[in-house]
Amino acid sequence: MTSQPFFRSRWVPRPAHVTELGLDAGLPGGFRAAGVAAGIKPSGRPDVGLLVNDSSEPVSAARFTASGAAAAPVLLSQERCRLEALRAVLVNSGCANAATGRRGLDDAAKTQGAAALAAGVDPAEVALASTGGISQFLPVEKVLKGILEARAGLDRGGDGAFQGAIQTTDAIEKRANLEVALPGGTVRLSAQCKGAGMISPNFATMLCFVETDAAIGAETADLLLGVCVKRSFDRASVDGQLSTNDTAILMASGASGVTVAPESEDELRFGEALDALLRQLAVMMVVDGEGAARAARVVVSGGLQENVEVAARAVANSPLVKAALHGGDPNWGRIVQAVGGVLGGLGLVQAPLAVDVTIEGMQVCSAGGAIPYDEAELDRLVQREEVEYEVALPGEGAETEVFFSDLSKEYVEFNSAYTT
Amino acid sequence: MTSQPFFRSRWVPRPAHVTELGLDAGLPGGFRAAGVAAGIKPSGRPDVGLLVNDSSEPVSAARFTASGAAAAPVLLSQERCRLEALRAVLVNSGCANAATGRRGLDDAAKTQGAAALAAGVDPAEVALASTGGISQFLPVEKVLKGILEARAGLDRGGDGAFQGAIQTTDAIEKRANLEVALPGGTVRLSAQCKGAGMISPNFATMLCFVETDAAIGAETADLLLGVCVKRSFDRASVDGQLSTNDTAILMASGASGVTVAPESEDELRFGEALDALLRQLAVMMVVDGEGAARAARVVVSGGLQENVEVAARAVANSPLVKAALHGGDPNWGRIVQAVGGVLGGLGLVQAPLAVDVTIEGMQVCSAGGAIPYDEAELDRLVQREEVEYEVALPGEGAETEVFFSDLSKEYVEFNSAYTT
Repeated sequence: MTSQPFFRSRWVPRPAHVTELGLDAGLPGGFRAAGVAAGIKPSGRPDVGLLVNDSSEPVSAARFTASGAAAAPVLLSQERCRLEALRAVLVNSGCANAATGRRGLDDAAKTQGAAALAAGVDPAEVALASTGGISQFLPVEKVLKGILEARAGLDRGGDGAFQGAIQTTDAIEKRANLEVALPGGTVRLSAQCKGAGMISPNFATMLCFVETDAAIGAETADLLLGVCVKRSFDRASVDGQLSTNDTAILMASGASGVTVAPESEDELRFGEALDALLRQLAVMMVVDGEGAARAARVVVSGGLQENVEVAARAVANSPLVKAALHGGDPNWGRIVQAVGGVLGGLGLVQAPLAVDVTIEGMQVCSAGGAIPYDEAELDRLVQREEVEYEVALPGEGAETEVFFSDLSKEYVEFNSAYTT
Repeated sequence: MTSQPFFRSRWVPRPAHVTELGLDAGLPGGFRAAGVAAGIKPSGRPDVGLLVNDSSEPVSAARFTASGAAAAPVLLSQERCRLEALRAVLVNSGCANAATGRRGLDDAAKTQGAAALAAGVDPAEVALASTGGISQFLPVEKVLKGILEARAGLDRGGDGAFQGAIQTTDAIEKRANLEVALPGGTVRLSAQCKGAGMISPNFATMLCFVETDAAIGAETADLLLGVCVKRSFDRASVDGQLSTNDTAILMASGASGVTVAPESEDELRFGEALDALLRQLAVMMVVDGEGAARAARVVVSGGLQENVEVAARAVANSPLVKAALHGGDPNWGRIVQAVGGVLGGLGLVQAPLAVDVTIEGMQVCSAGGAIPYDEAELDRLVQREEVEYEVALPGEGAETEVFFSDLSKEYVEFNSAYTT
């Protein structure tokens, strides 16, 4: 392959037992997908997708946004679906079907019923996911037409088209086809993902669908997805904004005949591969943040988990830190300000806070005070495409990380022009 | 006067018993001030100011940032000053003396000693306030030279120069001279204030100095300042960033001979005037937010004070809401997203959240769902210089407001170019 490898961030090395297949390798055995243009997006680009698991014993797991304003497709999927045994997923872009009240739920239910009919499964086996503008009603007729067309196009090589149907403002194609060597045999892992704005560390705003041909139990699938989402999408922030529509679904067909048993070496290796897959996708979202030119990771350590967590998010979401990151400005005072501001503001610490700050391995602040460092070298280091900040609070034992985007004029331009 | 009145926001009407005096009216009796250029700012603009209360029985009250990374002048003022009986304030811009550790405290102490000597008072009677870049050490020699020069220039008409010495990125002159008619007689109230960036609702990042010739007890001064700060600077957000240096000081000379006794009608009227003064200054900071073109107020009501407070800040600090405000985009879905995201993310509510949204008096969302409204009219309404959002959460009895700026390309440009 001459194209860029999927595992391209220094923060997510490819596990040795994982091999990247090409983007045209197709879905794992047992899966078919399609994506079509149904006219929801004014641009005429693809906007309805269908994903089907043909296995006789389908297994799945799902995670959704924690938003109190969760969209209709999220509410319906959570309340009405057999999330541990999904056979299909219906997706659309161009309309989030959020803040649409009772009518939004009815609209979502209609499309769920239609997708079930088209896929020949029970409505409770069809999960829904939507993305796009909030507060618009779903154009149900268009979605139904799209379902019919998508059904005709279902194909094992349809993952690219399926992903096209969930993309909105993404510039990077967030898709992967992997081969994973387990002690018990080789399995496949594929993912189609979208997300570039309205991304918060408290579950990144995104849609992500992962398929595997491993034979895996529902409890194992749920456990692994839960852990891996916490270490990936939960740790990514473009703009600190928790979406109404976040959805991540893992589906297994068992078509490989390779079983991933609980607490086995296979489970460990499978989990490592899933973890790397989702972490790389999370970093891609941050790199692809609306208008973003530079990505960063902040690692915060200290004695109290709550403080470490709050401080990491404060740095990742500070417009001042993000603007400095964008400008390649080594303005580390803003990191101290963000950490001290949030921890003091919440009454979690009292001044003076003994905080250490290190940027790209160069320490600039010790116990809350500036120390001498090579300014010219730091200027150079913060020009990198990926910049790492380390913040050490007093104490030991707790640590967390957040991946985040910079804040650019393009982000503002994009988001002040985008109309409901 | 042909210039713009001080009370210029529709959100802060001028109390009937308050009269605006000109900006050249001078300080209340008993006060002298000066501001000079001491060479801290590379631009050569004024950067050291001195304010003195000549009263034989000075009274004062102070409030400081809650930041865990509070700057050296804040720490020193809190720990070493007689905050209820200050006789002088030394201010500087061009350097925040924050994140400067032990050396920063020593530097601050030196300037406090010098200012005490210059003003002929005890060091514990001199409060300090600094603003500027974080992580730089204070150029003590320059400040000492500035103190000497400022001392020579102390004058009742020096409030303009004093304010000039605390300005950084302010474009609007945040200064007022008021006359307040109390039942017991007429008193004066003056204020010099700065603040345009790094402003958060949890005490806006700013410096504010208020002088009065009323005879007022220390407890009353403390009570009134505390209440009024909570209703003004605490409710203003440019960028959600709590500063290391926030300071507000109220000083009384008693020179008018009019006593403001506790729980009197005089106290009520004086409090109303102080409240309006600080609220108008808070709105000015928001209007003057770095790069801001439009200001907004969000009023959130509901049954639980915590939810109302958290939701109001989430709306005020959402980059998506702020970008929409900037663009004159009536994208109210982002308000629902911000409210639902923060309340759900913190586990304070579960979806679906029955939230109502009203913009400039026009309701657009009821119980979490879109309702029909006049879109053309709403488009027009959100073009106003001041835009008001009302958010109603379930329940009654709790309400709060936050004033906030929009998010502009200029903010990003400014903050990605500003170097430590």
